[in-house]
Parts: sequence; C-alpha cells; structure tokens
Amino acid sequence: MSEKATTRSRLGDEIVSRINQLGTISETPENLARVFLSPEHRVAADLLMSWMKDAGMAAHLDAVGNVCGRYEGERPGLPCLMLGSHYDTVRDAGKWDGPLGVITAIACVADLSRRGVRLPFAIEVACFADEEGVRFASTLLGSRAVAGTFDESVLKTRDANGLTMREAMARFGLDPDHIGAAARARRELHAYVELHIEQGPVLEQQNLPVGVVTAISGATPLGANLTGMAGHAGTVPMGLRRDALAGAAECIVAVEAFCKTDDADLVGTVGAVTALPGATNVIPGRVSFTLDIRAPTDAHRKLAVAEIVRQIEAIAKRRELALQIDVTHENRTVPCASWLKAQVAEAVAGEGYGVFELPSGAGHDGMAMIDIADVAMLFVRCRGGISHHPAEHVEAADADVGARVLLRFIEGFRPTA
Amino acid sequence: MSEKATTRSRLGDEIVSRINQLGTISETPENLARVFLSPEHRVAADLLMSWMKDAGMAAHLDAVGNVCGRYEGERPGLPCLMLGSHYDTVRDAGKWDGPLGVITAIACVADLSRRGVRLPFAIEVACFADEEGVRFASTLLGSRAVAGTFDESVLKTRDANGLTMREAMARFGLDPDHIGAAARARRELHAYVELHIEQGPVLEQQNLPVGVVTAISGATPLGANLTGMAGHAGTVPMGLRRDALAGAAECIVAVEAFCKTDDADLVGTVGAVTALPGATNVIPGRVSFTLDIRAPTDAHRKLAVAEIVRQIEAIAKRRELALQIDVTHENRTVPCASWLKAQVAEAVAGEGYGVFELPSGAGHDGMAMIDIADVAMLFVRCRGGISHHPAEHVEAADADVGARVLLRFIEGFRPTA
Repeated sequence: MSEKATTRSRLGDEIVSRINQLGTISETPENLARVFLSPEHRVAADLLMSWMKDAGMAAHLDAVGNVCGRYEGERPGLPCLMLGSHYDTVRDAGKWDGPLGVITAIACVADLSRRGVRLPFAIEVACFADEEGVRFASTLLGSRAVAGTFDESVLKTRDANGLTMREAMARFGLDPDHIGAAARARRELHAYVELHIEQGPVLEQQNLPVGVVTAISGATPLGANLTGMAGHAGTVPMGLRRDALAGAAECIVAVEAFCKTDDADLVGTVGAVTALPGATNVIPGRVSFTLDIRAPTDAHRKLAVAEIVRQIEAIAKRRELALQIDVTHENRTVPCASWLKAQVAEAVAGEGYGVFELPSGAGHDGMAMIDIADVAMLFVRCRGGISHHPAEHVEAADADVGARVLLRFIEGFRPTA
Repeated sequence: MSEKATTRSRLGDEIVSRINQLGTISETPENLARVFLSPEHRVAADLLMSWMKDAGMAAHLDAVGNVCGRYEGERPGLPCLMLGSHYDTVRDAGKWDGPLGVITAIACVADLSRRGVRLPFAIEVACFADEEGVRFASTLLGSRAVAGTFDESVLKTRDANGLTMREAMARFGLDPDHIGAAARARRELHAYVELHIEQGPVLEQQNLPVGVVTAISGATPLGANLTGMAGHAGTVPMGLRRDALAGAAECIVAVEAFCKTDDADLVGTVGAVTALPGATNVIPGRVSFTLDIRAPTDAHRKLAVAEIVRQIEAIAKRRELALQIDVTHENRTVPCASWLKAQVAEAVAGEGYGVFELPSGAGHDGMAMIDIADVAMLFVRCRGGISHHPAEHVEAADADVGARVLLRFIEGFRPTA
C-alpha cells in the first residue's frame, strides 16, 4: 500500500510539474502559443527528448518534427505499443491539451524503467508536432507523417507571414523532401493509445476522473445560405415578408430540437451567422450560417445530416427563401477497437473507478493513426469542459488517476485482437 | 372631359420630368446622394425655387436651408394649408423618396396658378432640407426647425469629415445662431399634408395607386444580449449546452410568431445579429441582436413590447442564459387627424379610386410638424415596396393619380376640424 501510494504521488506531482514547465515554452510571453516549426517547437522537442532519455528511452526527432521515444521490451526490436499525443498548441491555449498525453506516457515509461520492468513488447511514445493545424490550416500533420498519409501538396501552403511550409521546414532543419522517412509500418505497431483531456463537461457531470472513448466522432460541416427579400422594418407587413433571418432562426431551432431528441450522442451546432444588410431597421434579405454535425458512427451522422437538410429545405420552401447548402468536407468516424477499449476499461476498473464510455466529439491524432493501427483513447476530466483557453485545467489528482490507469493498462497489455 | 384629360397628362408628365431633373443633382456621379448643407443641396434648392416662381409662388430659403414657397389665397396673409416633403436623400438613393411630395405639391399650385384659382386660404410648399439625417445622424432637422423644436445641441455634431453642423451651416451661407427664425406658429397653419411614396408593398398588393395614411407608427428599438457558455461543437452534449445562438433563434422565431398573430399592423423585426466567438466549431457563448417594434398606436406598441420582452425573458430563463435588454429610445405614434384624413379620402374617392387606409411604418416630417399642426398623408404606390435604393420607382400614371388627388384635396379643402 505504501509503495503504491508513493508511486501515485510521484506520477501526479511529476506530471503537473512538467505540464507547467512545458507550458512556459511559448512564442508569446503573455499567453501560450506553440505552433509547428516555430523556434519554441524546437525548444519543446529538446525538453521532451531529455525527459525521454531520463526515462530510459532512446529519443529522436523524426523527419516531420515529431519527437519519438522508444523503450525496448524483453528483447530489442519487438513491435511496440505506441502511446502518444501532440505538443503543438492553439494560440492563447491551455497547458493540458496534447501535453498531458505525452508527459503521462513518458512518466509511465519512467516508472517502468525505475522498476527495471521490461515487457514482451516495446513501448514507443510519439509526441506529434502538429495536431491543431494552426500555422498552415491543415491538421494532424505529425500523425499523418507517421501513418504515411502526409499530403505533400500542403508543403506549398503559406503561414500568415507568407512563408511556405517547405521553407519553414528547411529553416527548422528538416528536409521537406524526406517526410516519407517518418512513416511507420503496420507491422511495427500493436496499437496506438492516446490519453487526452476530455475537452467537454461529461466526466465532470458524471463525477469521474477518467472515461473510455468509444469513437472519435465523424463530423459534417455545412454552410447554408438563405436569400429572401430585404425591406423596411416599418413598412412591410408581417404577412408580406420573406425574412431570411427569421427563416435561419427557425432552422437553428429545428437543428437543436432534432439533435436533442437523439439518444446516440448526435450533436449539431450553428456556430456562426451573418445577416445582411444587418441594419436595425431593415428586414434581412440574406443570411448565411454554419452547421457542424457530429455522431459516433458515420451511418448515424449521415442519416442525421440528410434529415436536417430535409428540414432546412422544407423551412426554406415554406418561407419562399432561396436556399444553398454546401458540404465543405467530411471527417469519417474513427471507432476505437473493441479489444483495445476492453483492456483500457479493465485498467480503469482495476484502479477502482467506474467504467464510463463516451465518444470524442473533438478530433485527435487517432484519426490519422487508424490507417496503420487499432486505436483507443482514455479521457481525463477537465474543469468545466473548457479547452483551447488559458482556463483549461486538470486537477493533479485526476492527472494521477490517468497515469495510474495508463500504467496499469501498459503492464497488463495483451497485444492481440 | 378633354380639358381634364389634358390636365392629367400635363401633371403626370411634368412630375416625372422634374423627378428625373432633380435626380441628376448628386454628390456622386454614379449614384444619387444629396445630403444636408452640401453644394448639391444649394443647387437643388435653387431649382426648386425657380419651379415655385414659375408656379406663381413667392419662394425663399429659410434659416435652416428649407425651401419655402407661398401661394397667396383670396387675399394676402391668410393662414395656409402647408404641403411638403423633403429634398435630401440617403446615399445610393432612389429619386422619389421626398422629391415626389415637393414636386407634386408645386405642380398642383402651378395648375391652380395657370387657371387663376385663388382659395380662401394660402398654400405653402415646404421642401425640408434634412429628413433622412444622413450627414449628422440626426433626422427631421428641416421640419423640426419649422416646428420650432430644433435641438441646438446637434450643431456640435460632426459629419464623417469632422466638420460640425455649425461650421457646415456657415459655409453654406446660413447663420447657425438664427435657426429659430425658421419656426412657424400654429396660427399660421390650417394643417400639414404630405404626399410620399409608400416605401412598402401594401398598395401594390391591393392594386391601388394611392392610400390614405392612418398614422405614422411609433417605434421601439431594442437591443438584446444573451450570454450562455461557449464550448466545443463536438464535445458538449446537447443536454449540457447553454447555446446563446439557439436561444436567440428561439427569440427571433417567437417575435415573428407574436407579430404575425396580431391583426392591427404590428411589425417586429430582428435586423442585426452577432454571435461570438463566431467559429464554425464553437458553441456561441454570447449573442446580441436588435429588435424593432412598430404599431400604429402607442398603447398597442407598448403592450406588444411588454409581451415580447416577457417572452424573451422566459426563453432566456428556461435556457439559463443571462439576458440584458436595452431600449435605446422610442418614437411616439403620430396619428393623422380624422377630419383631415376624411378630406384626403374624399379626394381619393372623388378621383374614382377605392379608399384604402394603411399606417406608415417609416418615419416622415409629419412627426415633427404634429407639434404645430394637424397632419395627414397620402401614399403613392412604389414598385415592389422598394425605397432607399436606385431601383425605387413610381409609375408615371401613379404619380399622376397622386397629383390629381392632391389637387382635388386642395381645391376642396375646408380648414376646420
């Protein structure tokens, strides 16, 4: 008991201390921002590699800027259990989104190393260099390189200063013509498992420190445009109006109502709306709004999108509004592998916590890694469900639970589907 | 019959020709803009005065820049029937909003003058210099000066170039310290009657060239702010959201539904909406929207505002959204005088048209003139209800009907309540 308590305390304290240390590496002094191929990306990579070496791992920077650490198993060269997350941030970020996963994974390996434990598989820790996609407006760059699906056309995209990704890579000291060297083969990995903050309020509401992810929900983002007839707010009687904003409002209410009656984690969000001309005394003639629909299965999401579009079309038709709906792109759902999810759940129960399953509504590196490995995720409760904000916070006790569950999962890992 | 037909044709043709001529006097060559105290204001004033003189009137520019014409009655110095409208425009304006009223009034006087008709009252034509309030963001400046309610504090307001109204008046050749000289006394006027385009689609829908205005509807403009909780569009389940935009949408739908069930010309408009942070994948945490409520009686409008605010409060409370509602100002309703309205209706019927009554949802100079005279208005059909736009249009035949009705009204006018 006393040894276990010591381990607990050591993991939790070390994680919080390192979260704070990594959180000081920022492009801007007043808030946290650390984007792909920045000088701070390099400083952070060096710090991560030093922590890996302290944990008994071999560490290197790969061809795209990911930090890769390897802790050999019972004999060198065994396929690995890959743990990971990302170490880039959004601008004005919190300290936990991404770093908690990589720091916890390193802490777990350090604990094994301190105890001299070698397992029948290697452990690798992947610290992905770009998940958020802030600098070049293209997400999952690090994990896509590892999965061998990096799209080389993005090398031509430019950052806000006009620098191409190709130029930025060269300045960072990487060779943009050899990104392929970062790719790993399916046979090298038993699985990819990521610990991450929830970024939502569900675990807090369930009063649980951790949760087992069922799937990374696919998303369909849509753009809708409604065109009616602008007019004077005083002179056009209600019965003669073709008010594009009243129509959009009815659509927004309908989307919410439809998603609320769903019992399978469907979410629909209208995040942005623009009404033109936008004067207090003019009936809006044109309104555009965005729509983001997510569900833990693709089939469910597609049915929901079809039904929501049908409802919006009916509203527009009844109100004599011209409607244009565009689907910009789609992210497929990434289901977590049952066999892997079961072992994560076992570890949660083994640490004495209730097993609670939930989908991930946000995107994660597993969306890329699914192309070369089965994927699972463990969520850690975050205060108020807030992320991408300086107020992002994880209690030290919850970070500790996350680490203990991950460590138990690693030690009990059976690399078979 | 043949003489009447000739008169008809002469009035309609003359009006359209003068509308086009006045419409060429613009600050900008590609579209129509003629604002208070501009050089074009002066050019237009000179043209209007020349037309008045041709119509047998005495004409002068008053202390605030209004063009005032007087056609004496059977003997000099009799109280007048004042006809009028404004000759300033919005930017990118149509040619008819304002000018139709002053040009038609001058055309009617010209017809009387040609026929040598003198009436037991004088006729004055007031061409107000600023009704739209474009340059100094303060409306009805011309008619307020005539009504003796000009607020001298507006002399300090500045236009977009930083020039104060006081400076602009001096440059124009007016003495800003003697605006009071423009004021008229109640005893000098029997009534104020204005012909104006409808600026709405009701007459077009009724298939009528003219309509009798019941009142200039009062307006209550409100600003509403809803504050909920921003969150990730993927990670916050529907049941845990406090979505400020979904709440605002419910309010917008409720306002529309409430006004639609009203059978006394109530209109409610949400013209502007802003959702923050306004990202496609973030639940809006803050939404503000405007609300404009108008009705032909103050009592009805006030009851409607109270009920709409009550509904918005209930929606906010149920959704746990913080609500702030501000009433910025209020315009009281200006009812048209029954005795005067009856004489206008008589003239409409006399010309062989159905008498159709409707409120004016837009503001007009009668809102200022009510302080020194009973007020009535005659609306002329405009195409599609469009105004404040280059597409603003009145058919020549309708302009002709408007002039004939106004002429019949003048000749039959009995200056008694």
